[in-house]
Amino acid sequence: MLNELDFDKTGGMIPAVVQDSGDGRVLMLGFMNREAFEKTVETGKVTFWSRSRNELWTKGGSSGHYLAVQRIEIDCDGDTLLIQAESLGPGVCHNGYRSCFYRRLEDGRWEVSEERTYDPKAVYQK
Amino acid sequence: MLNELDFDKTGGMIPAVVQDSGDGRVLMLGFMNREAFEKTVETGKVTFWSRSRNELWTKGGSSGHYLAVQRIEIDCDGDTLLIQAESLGPGVCHNGYRSCFYRRLEDGRWEVSEERTYDPKAVYQK
Repeated sequence: MLNELDFDKTGGMIPAVVQDSGDGRVLMLGFMNREAFEKTVETGKVTFWSRSRNELWTKGGSSGHYLAVQRIEIDCDGDTLLIQAESLGPGVCHNGYRSCFYRRLEDGRWEVSEERTYDPKAVYQK
Repeated sequence: MLNELDFDKTGGMIPAVVQDSGDGRVLMLGFMNREAFEKTVETGKVTFWSRSRNELWTKGGSSGHYLAVQRIEIDCDGDTLLIQAESLGPGVCHNGYRSCFYRRLEDGRWEVSEERTYDPKAVYQK
């Protein structure tokens, strides 16, 4: 299982796309190293490798908004993961949105296209 | 528009997830550098930077299965793109599947979970 994942191509980490298993909204993308992938499989909670903090990062660890794994898919080259997950909480984005992709390109500018689903201050600055 | 994209974090390239604008199936993930992003916006055809060939790579250039851009979304950190596209052809995967994510984890093994939608030999070895 693990030897079909090509962690070498991108310096020990591969991108993992998280898609809402309910309605298919793409929620976020994080990176997983071998350890993060194993922890994700083992615990059923999406866990990334934080490139900024250099540590394992279980999504929802601070906010309580865990991502419960429903299905893990691998791409043809074995260097990208697609994780179908149930989002336990109002949103995954630290800016207060359901999806991290809350802005879209319109006439050459990035425009906010979604409503906030929660107040990030209330969640993250406890 | 471009200065909100953080190409530096990952060595000049950012991951770009392509999602079918019809039914939301995630089709593939590629990497874009600045030039690939600009070409994608300009032409309306998804164009990546090929890390193996070190050149611009317009998806569909060989197969004719272009990805027609419908919407481009950016994530909160400006280091990932989500592209809603219409898939012009039976599939994007060079192995003959609609999506590159045609295998899923089942009992510790990657199992093929989709049917082939075309014969890759007929498309790529002309």
